[in-house]
Amino acid sequence: MARHIYACPMRWSDMDAFGHVNNVVFLRYLEEARIDFMFTQAAAAGAGEFAGGSVVARHEIDYKLPLVHRPTPVTIETWVTKIGGASLTVCYEVKDTAEDGTETVYVRASTVVVPYDLKAARPRRISPVEREFLGRFMDDEAVPAAA
Amino acid sequence: MARHIYACPMRWSDMDAFGHVNNVVFLRYLEEARIDFMFTQAAAAGAGEFAGGSVVARHEIDYKLPLVHRPTPVTIETWVTKIGGASLTVCYEVKDTAEDGTETVYVRASTVVVPYDLKAARPRRISPVEREFLGRFMDDEAVPAAA
Amino acid sequence: MARHIYACPMRWSDMDAFGHVNNVVFLRYLEEARIDFMFTQAAAAGAGEFAGGSVVARHEIDYKLPLVHRPTPVTIETWVTKIGGASLTVCYEVKDTAEDGTETVYVRASTVVVPYDLKAARPRRISPVEREFLGRFMDDEAVPAAA
Amino acid sequence: MARHIYACPMRWSDMDAFGHVNNVVFLRYLEEARIDFMFTQAAAAGAGEFAGGSVVARHEIDYKLPLVHRPTPVTIETWVTKIGGASLTVCYEVKDTAEDGTETVYVRASTVVVPYDLKAARPRRISPVEREFLGRFMDDEAVPAAA
Repeated sequence: MARHIYACPMRWSDMDAFGHVNNVVFLRYLEEARIDFMFTQAAAAGAGEFAGGSVVARHEIDYKLPLVHRPTPVTIETWVTKIGGASLTVCYEVKDTAEDGTETVYVRASTVVVPYDLKAARPRRISPVEREFLGRFMDDEAVPAAA
Repeated sequence: MARHIYACPMRWSDMDAFGHVNNVVFLRYLEEARIDFMFTQAAAAGAGEFAGGSVVARHEIDYKLPLVHRPTPVTIETWVTKIGGASLTVCYEVKDTAEDGTETVYVRASTVVVPYDLKAARPRRISPVEREFLGRFMDDEAVPAAA
Repeated sequence: MARHIYACPMRWSDMDAFGHVNNVVFLRYLEEARIDFMFTQAAAAGAGEFAGGSVVARHEIDYKLPLVHRPTPVTIETWVTKIGGASLTVCYEVKDTAEDGTETVYVRASTVVVPYDLKAARPRRISPVEREFLGRFMDDEAVPAAA
Repeated sequence: MARHIYACPMRWSDMDAFGHVNNVVFLRYLEEARIDFMFTQAAAAGAGEFAGGSVVARHEIDYKLPLVHRPTPVTIETWVTKIGGASLTVCYEVKDTAEDGTETVYVRASTVVVPYDLKAARPRRISPVEREFLGRFMDDEAVPAAA
């Protein structure tokens, strides 16, 4: 039931002319969290092949509250809700947690990722070592539910 | 049953290290199509208030085929699938159409937009003139269907 | 004495929280003008190797006036001020020209480009056909002059 | 003779199709270093007005070595080479320093910044408290020298 925690650095330029982090930039934040999870962390756990090729098949993203740039990172929690034969689904919350535990959630999202064999130019199956790694972050709580 | 057609210019830097248009950048393309539709075209039709404030509440996006940069624009078709009291849903296809009519679809997506009153700092209802404008682009064909 | 003219499409997101095109984004505009000049146009003139590898060695850029997003492109004039053995210098003006010929210049800049042989992983000399192509756009007017 | 040190987080998407951090993105890195220096650090030292308005008047940037994305930040050293009445010049080095002190410099650059009074919509003079803050980071070593 572990969740992957990523302290996502913000850039001043992530804000648009309305003075908030632009909706598209949140997808960039999720990419950074996913890369930390599936490239860096997975490789450290012996599952380094995701970094060699992974394709995004689908995103769903719900915007809950606006976010303004500040020097401190925003937290992204990532977990796994589905491990198929040749795809996986990760969910995320982008949020701040106050000292008293109160959470402020800016975004909830999910992504379907397809491992890809770049040399063979086709999707590939998830390997046992990848399955074991992903399983540690498995959680039933799917987000976002379609309205 | 009209659809809004936007010839979306690409930038070389839209490609990532894998040599394809990055999945996040497609959301940027959709933003440009939406701005052309809801800011420029709507204003020309007398419905200029969207440009004063519009918030994205949700995106769903399915990636069908990879796209590589070229000097010519890619086509984005946009239409409206739902007009609520204080929100609307637009759908899009990012695609090329060959001379013989064959379509190559790269992305299908939908966005829930909430008109926003920046001065009052709250969502606002869709006005009659906006409703009339949006109605011209109403179509039942919703994309993407959740898998 | 010809100049390369590029009608540079703007994106709404090119503006930052101050409501102007961000200073960094102008470098992106220059990249697009350079790619149209050195990749697309040069290739059409038989000098297609720049697209296979070109490295930026240096930029100088002066910001003259702020620019705000609008649906119509901004014009970038590009010309060549120096053709060395293994490098070239291009200059640019980013501007609008009114019907009466009055120019509004937003940015003046220059870039030193080094043709690069990706396979050999090293800079390479400018070929005769490239030199002939570049020579058509040669002009003595260098910008920007260091203050 | 102090230098401002900024540990600049990289994003995977900072790389372009050639697999290196794109030349334009380095300007974004410099913006982040400058914001940390002139917004966050200056405000902590009692000179908080830069954050209210600052305009970039000029950049010079030399690219020395290519940089590839990795999870760890790259270091940006920033210092001040000139404090005028209504403008200042900052210089930067983007680099890694090995344990034995060996430096790998990727970029050297300089920026002319003009403090701006947004309400009055015009440049303003540097205040005494700003001058004192900037003076702590004054250094004669200017980069880059024009070739």
